[in-house]
Amino acid sequence: MTFELTILGSNSATPAYGRNQTSQVLNINEKLYLIDCGEGTQLQLMKYNIKSSRIKYIFISHLHGDHYLGLVGLISSMHLIGRKEELTLFGPPELKEIIDIHLLHSDTRLRYPLIFHPVQPSQEQVILENDDVIVRSFPLDHRIPCTGFRFDERARLAKINIEAVKAQGVPTECLPVLKQGMDCVSDDGKVYKSAELTYPPPLTRSYAFCSDTLDSGSYHDSIKGVNLLYHEATFLNDLLLRAVETYHTTALQAGVIAKNVLAKKLLLGHFSARYRNLEPLLNESKSVFQNSFLAMEGVTFPVE
Amino acid sequence: MTFELTILGSNSATPAYGRNQTSQVLNINEKLYLIDCGEGTQLQLMKYNIKSSRIKYIFISHLHGDHYLGLVGLISSMHLIGRKEELTLFGPPELKEIIDIHLLHSDTRLRYPLIFHPVQPSQEQVILENDDVIVRSFPLDHRIPCTGFRFDERARLAKINIEAVKAQGVPTECLPVLKQGMDCVSDDGKVYKSAELTYPPPLTRSYAFCSDTLDSGSYHDSIKGVNLLYHEATFLNDLLLRAVETYHTTALQAGVIAKNVLAKKLLLGHFSARYRNLEPLLNESKSVFQNSFLAMEGVTFPVE
Repeated sequence: MTFELTILGSNSATPAYGRNQTSQVLNINEKLYLIDCGEGTQLQLMKYNIKSSRIKYIFISHLHGDHYLGLVGLISSMHLIGRKEELTLFGPPELKEIIDIHLLHSDTRLRYPLIFHPVQPSQEQVILENDDVIVRSFPLDHRIPCTGFRFDERARLAKINIEAVKAQGVPTECLPVLKQGMDCVSDDGKVYKSAELTYPPPLTRSYAFCSDTLDSGSYHDSIKGVNLLYHEATFLNDLLLRAVETYHTTALQAGVIAKNVLAKKLLLGHFSARYRNLEPLLNESKSVFQNSFLAMEGVTFPVE
Repeated sequence: MTFELTILGSNSATPAYGRNQTSQVLNINEKLYLIDCGEGTQLQLMKYNIKSSRIKYIFISHLHGDHYLGLVGLISSMHLIGRKEELTLFGPPELKEIIDIHLLHSDTRLRYPLIFHPVQPSQEQVILENDDVIVRSFPLDHRIPCTGFRFDERARLAKINIEAVKAQGVPTECLPVLKQGMDCVSDDGKVYKSAELTYPPPLTRSYAFCSDTLDSGSYHDSIKGVNLLYHEATFLNDLLLRAVETYHTTALQAGVIAKNVLAKKLLLGHFSARYRNLEPLLNESKSVFQNSFLAMEGVTFPVE
């Protein structure tokens, strides 16, 4: 199953040096999940040939402009280019009011259903379950209410070992049971063991997104053991005080967090406009967590 | 005095082919007047090395997203990069509500004074007078309330003919009077004639912006005789019916309007995303008004 992340923008606060504000798109089994939507996201989608019609879900972490000011433009354009399919939006409760006021004053009645799910920022919760993934929101520690999102691939079915199944003469009705990892008892009382008759399913993969946060530790349990962790790294550690004052994280802190939560791979993002060259941020993180990367625009990272 | 227009975006509805949504910046005597502010305007300003700190006034024609969705991002970025100078904003009365709700939910208190002047869309009115220019808004005919803007350079002072002044022995206190085109009577009752003692001031120049409108004729008086006319030309004339249905204008109509109002030069803009190649729009307008140009991004047009 496809499970990969494409970065559309990773700059913080203001765009700079051609770097756009936060947005990224997760492809899970060929359905697209857009995470945050800074100004210009629809232009970035075009630039990287990603059709907005493939986006099924949008997740907004918080209501600072660099994380959502592209949203109204995107949903308006979807309307104008003839979208009919439902779009599901998750975000702070106040986001609904913002969208409604834009639609009201532009006299726009969307031609597709826009389903809004307010996300309560106070505690971790499952916000979406479908055939492919379970999505949880969890509280981050920012100047205004802000949530991270974690995407866990659903447990997949075991694969039948055809030779073993033939050799033991397993009845057909047992196969779905065995695939789910359970043993099967046939009508004549014979027990067929899943462990003997299937190959174990691949381990499930997970991705976590931490947009803007102080390194307060409160959310570390929520991102434990993820395969891919995106974590903001607004500043170098010599500006730790500034990071704390502004409820942000340094690259060094991001590396330590990735290490502590046993993440497999770390993407650094939300770069301050003060840094033209981002290599020092990368090096700082790598000094404590080698498998660190910069979340550069247009790059696709597999979740593995 | 500098009087020139730089195009930041001219596409209608959705961005397409790398073309951005409507925004343009008028430089009048080295002060910048931003007109409309589609999504991504702050990125376009950066691209063309135009410092947002030089913008003194912003004018929003109407509340369709392609004309204003970059505004909240721009005013937020001005705040973040430390603007202290007052910014004056003109636009539909409802725009204030939209800005306030964004600032409220992002917990932003702007560090500079943002002065808002609601523009009533029902009749032509003077909305700004300063040392350089008189700005009028006038009603366009669109699906929602929409105004155009006309910028008339203020009448400039006549230039003193130094030789003639010396020859007639004009008293110094008469010079400011003569410069204003008035005759001056000295204490001893002698009359000094401005027409003999000055060179006439250059003719004043004017620019008019017609963002989105049906060719209803109602606003043609408001744009009479302008040096430079920007007029929307969303469609080719074979889609006249579609233009009428959507309250837009064709390139042919724009050319006829420019001709009828005795404009000196016409800029076509607000191109439909259906046209990759814009030359047919230009040719259609030129067939009736030769001095037509496409409002291409990054191009500066002097008002002359």
